[in-house]
Amino acid sequence: MKASIIIVGDEILKNRIVERNSTIISNLLLKKGYFITGKYFVGDNFKNINRVLHLSIKDSKIIVITGGLGPTVDDITLSAVAKSLKRKLVFSEKIYEKISKKMKADNKILIRQSLTISGSKIFENGAGIAFCHSIVYKGVKIFLLPGVTREVEWITDNVLEKVIPNRAVRKEYNIKIFDTTETQIYQLLKEEFDSKTISDIHFYPIFGFIDLYFSKKEILKFLKNKFKGKFLETDAKDLNLYLKGELEKKNLKLSVAESCTGGLLSKYLTDIEGSSKFFLGGVVVYSNGSKNSILKVDRKLLEKYGAVSSEVAEMMAKNCSKIFRSDISVSITGIAGPSGGSIEKPVGTVFISTFYKNRLQTEKYVFNGSRDIVRQKSVNLSIFSILRRIKNE
Amino acid sequence: MKASIIIVGDEILKNRIVERNSTIISNLLLKKGYFITGKYFVGDNFKNINRVLHLSIKDSKIIVITGGLGPTVDDITLSAVAKSLKRKLVFSEKIYEKISKKMKADNKILIRQSLTISGSKIFENGAGIAFCHSIVYKGVKIFLLPGVTREVEWITDNVLEKVIPNRAVRKEYNIKIFDTTETQIYQLLKEEFDSKTISDIHFYPIFGFIDLYFSKKEILKFLKNKFKGKFLETDAKDLNLYLKGELEKKNLKLSVAESCTGGLLSKYLTDIEGSSKFFLGGVVVYSNGSKNSILKVDRKLLEKYGAVSSEVAEMMAKNCSKIFRSDISVSITGIAGPSGGSIEKPVGTVFISTFYKNRLQTEKYVFNGSRDIVRQKSVNLSIFSILRRIKNE
Repeated sequence: MKASIIIVGDEILKNRIVERNSTIISNLLLKKGYFITGKYFVGDNFKNINRVLHLSIKDSKIIVITGGLGPTVDDITLSAVAKSLKRKLVFSEKIYEKISKKMKADNKILIRQSLTISGSKIFENGAGIAFCHSIVYKGVKIFLLPGVTREVEWITDNVLEKVIPNRAVRKEYNIKIFDTTETQIYQLLKEEFDSKTISDIHFYPIFGFIDLYFSKKEILKFLKNKFKGKFLETDAKDLNLYLKGELEKKNLKLSVAESCTGGLLSKYLTDIEGSSKFFLGGVVVYSNGSKNSILKVDRKLLEKYGAVSSEVAEMMAKNCSKIFRSDISVSITGIAGPSGGSIEKPVGTVFISTFYKNRLQTEKYVFNGSRDIVRQKSVNLSIFSILRRIKNE
Repeated sequence: MKASIIIVGDEILKNRIVERNSTIISNLLLKKGYFITGKYFVGDNFKNINRVLHLSIKDSKIIVITGGLGPTVDDITLSAVAKSLKRKLVFSEKIYEKISKKMKADNKILIRQSLTISGSKIFENGAGIAFCHSIVYKGVKIFLLPGVTREVEWITDNVLEKVIPNRAVRKEYNIKIFDTTETQIYQLLKEEFDSKTISDIHFYPIFGFIDLYFSKKEILKFLKNKFKGKFLETDAKDLNLYLKGELEKKNLKLSVAESCTGGLLSKYLTDIEGSSKFFLGGVVVYSNGSKNSILKVDRKLLEKYGAVSSEVAEMMAKNCSKIFRSDISVSITGIAGPSGGSIEKPVGTVFISTFYKNRLQTEKYVFNGSRDIVRQKSVNLSIFSILRRIKNE
């Protein structure tokens, strides 16, 4: 079944913001088994909204539109869609009641924000003020979402996830394989299985690991054997939530020491509610000076091996555990790039060390990709390092 | 003058690659003064290429298309565009000569790769094999580029830069107003200006501030007066980059102490290359224990005022500066939620303190929104706190 995505907003066409809404929505639609025929980005003007809406209606059963539902004059999506579908805008008592509690504004604005399209269903937005609207037009289900990415994330997880039906056959097994590529896995599978069996496997490459879904047990067995020590068998969507569960089970407290990831790991761990139950804190030691003054990493060690080395990573992990008095610590030091690499230690070289039960374990990686990607991969592999140790020791 | 961008490729609609071509091309077009009316992403199929091409021809003078010029069977862009414009595909002797030197392949593939659209102009691609084609159709200039990002970058810099003429760019004012809402600004403007003047203002709400673009100087004057001490007059796209510039100008080194933001500020500061020039590091003190052991925040202070208080925020900022030996430090402590609030200190209460030139300055905020939003707003306002101090003192 086909789906289209329409992103409305001058700010996107002017490259004033990084557009992520289309990715968030398409990830959900792809996971649910839809085929996306187009993603259309248009400005806040009726003509183009009308054009891409009718183009989408021609070939899609689901259309998701984001942006232009705010209170200012350039927010015209709701009225443009109504006009385009020859429907009326109507005042919703229910929206008015809800938003007048959330928002202090003059009544004219509140009324404007309380409009919806005749015949539509409305859904409350748990991350913001503007509501989500859904209309059925000639058998096509059209969703209107606000443009703020956090709100789109919330609505995708809490509304679209529930109201858009699944098309895909349910995949029974899920495995996450770390530090490998789609191609590597694919080639190994090709040597063992026929193409029909392989086509049943869904690959979702995420930074530093590949998330695989499939329905045959023999594939699970094969992959677990081929990627020993490199996988997690779980359908957990988020590594931070999964880690939280595992640490809490064993009542372990964590601290982290970051260099090249610059706080990204701490940030990711504290993205979730209740992270204070397992996370004591972290240090971002972004200079040799702070590695020495905060984490007591030997100046001689820094000079001899360089900040990006297993020796420094290990001292970071060990001393981090000491200063936070944590049960387990992880450290990350590397070269995120784009500059700073050398022949010996190219951009993407990252050392990750864990200190647990008075013992260090250290891995060296050379990641491909941009600065952002190297940092994201480092964070996911550091979480994998912690999980592997607490599950096995 | 208007322009559109069409990105062709199944791999993009399936989220198999991160799409950057549209950004590279739109950056050039925006710089040259074009107004982009749409960006359209379609799969490798004739119907949708045809639809978005004709939609673009209706309102654009420049159309740039990328993708689908390779040698495999799913590369159909050239023939789809030819068919859509009712032009013939023709064999180009010139392309054949050039590519048979660059590429070893059987003659069938070489011939397929040597086709162009009747009446088109061709440009060699210095970063790859497929050529760039340009056609004029009903006064609209259409460019066809390959889909590989590295090649798109090369062609944008070396071909499009030269052959697409510059348009006059309208002078725009830009101001960022912190700790306010779209609605508040809108209501103040409505009391002073007519709706035509206001419709010229573009509002971009970002976490903790509103980014405004407009062309009238009287609006700038009005807003600067109404929001004294709460604005930055800059068109900087990213606060972290802007802060980097300001800190480097004054040769100041920064350190940060985070509680509720849990590393998000450090992460944001180190998202950019070269952040080590101004950023020494940070601490994430997520428990009372770590606030005391790492930052030497008095246990009595923590007990008397609570971790979320101006007193603790101030001691965090001051001691952070000491342990990192930085010129300026900022601290953030608050309740990100969703739980943990009280009547006195509801979810969203955040204290931000800066220590600079041996003097503290502290602000209290009560932010609306989810956990994520409270954290994002805290980060942006902490950067604003630093900027306000270093620019005024």
